Amino acid sequence: MNYGIIGTGAIGGYYGGKLAQSGKEVHFLFHRDYEYVKQHGLQINSCDGSFHLDNVNAYHSTADMPKCDVVLVGLKTTNNHLLPELLGPLLHPQTIVVLIQNGIGVEADVQQMFPQLQLVAGLAFICSAKTEPGVVNHQCYGSINLGNYSCKDEVRFGQVIEDFAQAGIQAKSVEYHEARWRKAVWNMPFNGMTVALNTQTDQLLGNAATRQLIREQMLEVIEAAHHCGVENLDASFAESMIQITDEMVPYSPSMKLDFDLHRPMEIYYLYTRPLQEARAAGFRMPKLEMLEAELLFLGKK
Amino acid sequence: MNYGIIGTGAIGGYYGGKLAQSGKEVHFLFHRDYEYVKQHGLQINSCDGSFHLDNVNAYHSTADMPKCDVVLVGLKTTNNHLLPELLGPLLHPQTIVVLIQNGIGVEADVQQMFPQLQLVAGLAFICSAKTEPGVVNHQCYGSINLGNYSCKDEVRFGQVIEDFAQAGIQAKSVEYHEARWRKAVWNMPFNGMTVALNTQTDQLLGNAATRQLIREQMLEVIEAAHHCGVENLDASFAESMIQITDEMVPYSPSMKLDFDLHRPMEIYYLYTRPLQEARAAGFRMPKLEMLEAELLFLGKK
Repeated sequence: MNYGIIGTGAIGGYYGGKLAQSGKEVHFLFHRDYEYVKQHGLQINSCDGSFHLDNVNAYHSTADMPKCDVVLVGLKTTNNHLLPELLGPLLHPQTIVVLIQNGIGVEADVQQMFPQLQLVAGLAFICSAKTEPGVVNHQCYGSINLGNYSCKDEVRFGQVIEDFAQAGIQAKSVEYHEARWRKAVWNMPFNGMTVALNTQTDQLLGNAATRQLIREQMLEVIEAAHHCGVENLDASFAESMIQITDEMVPYSPSMKLDFDLHRPMEIYYLYTRPLQEARAAGFRMPKLEMLEAELLFLGKK
Repeated sequence: MNYGIIGTGAIGGYYGGKLAQSGKEVHFLFHRDYEYVKQHGLQINSCDGSFHLDNVNAYHSTADMPKCDVVLVGLKTTNNHLLPELLGPLLHPQTIVVLIQNGIGVEADVQQMFPQLQLVAGLAFICSAKTEPGVVNHQCYGSINLGNYSCKDEVRFGQVIEDFAQAGIQAKSVEYHEARWRKAVWNMPFNGMTVALNTQTDQLLGNAATRQLIREQMLEVIEAAHHCGVENLDASFAESMIQITDEMVPYSPSMKLDFDLHRPMEIYYLYTRPLQEARAAGFRMPKLEMLEAELLFLGKK
């Protein structure tokens, strides 16, 4: 199977780079980095061993790319309005598209753009950043959970997982709906709070008041997930997320990097949409509603 | 009746200044401004007409002050641990102390320090600031509501109101408990939110998301007040507070000034204590809990 990477940033660059390094045929779409990567290749600095790809199948437009069996989308969701144009040329009837994106409701919206498309959610547990052209900095972790949203071809779905494994990426199949909400338990508190208080994960957990606030925000998400039909998730998950974060290096989540670099924040799929879905299911998350409002304010300012 | 002013800042300086200007005997306690005021007097810049007091009864220690019939306390509540020492020398058995301070629970705590003391809550509706020595800048409003907490001497209590009126200050008697909670409806959202988002009242109300957040925080306070036994307060009060603030000049509440000037913030009586009292009455204010946590974080940072 050949792979296409739409959005070769911290996430797409890392997973696509690992697949290419393992010998897979990978086609990368670049935006600003195109000229640089054409000349210098792609550098992956990784806690698990750095490497450099000299000859990258780099493109500046998806119109020039071949049809792909699997497409990994590593775009920010703030650019998802571009997907009809970006994805269209890469698709054949069996193409599987993996949305390695943040938030709740992304697959439903992309499915509306391409009703026949086989969609998979990619939930990356990774600390990675791209802060200069052609260089991905992978700090730690790197596993990816794949939640089948609308892929009927179970065999090919299994092959994707196998290809990831061969590339040295821990990948496994998970239940889509539960997986998206589990991820939100970490994402919703930490992404926004690091922006709202201009800080990092360790500072938030090192202060008794904000540590408790993060816990309560996590419990709001867990309760919302219950109302949205996720059963296998209880309050102890908040404690384990806090514990895992205690053990992480001080970390700026993607939204904090976006804010600091004056890029648009992914407020819609990380906050607005899950708040809406919970509300439609009869549950409100007051502290995360407040965080959404603060982010909308800071995003305009 | 003679008056003592403990904490001659934006509030104590304005009301004490007006009383002195009207011919009352007023004794002012100064901290850092003492030498300056001794030499230059006290300047009140006011939207209602500025004036200057040449000869001020200024003191640097309450030990040097005479006993007073009425004491106005304009201290920040963060300094209330000093009250046993500061108030003690000024009191005679009939002294009335007016706490012109922010928050919920202040009178109960001061009463514990002086069990026999006649206490009155002073709720100032005033935009005023002291940013340089010996100068009070009174921007707008200026009325004061007096809520009788434990003053048995109704006649003297009435005289205080009369003295205020003679000094050109709009003053009236209000029900203590309701008045404190009504004030909290404005104070709790705006004081903290201007700090949390580093902004002013007009910006908060000019953004749709934070305007709604402010409204919901106000409704939390109104609901908490109901649970704490305040009956005569409904949701429409939030709308009128928002409308009044729309019509105000862009304003930085006292907590924002404290934060910007690296002074301690009055988190305890403005947030912690009302949150506790509401919780004890079976109600939680989740958005204001979150704001408290953010302020505790910012206060330490």
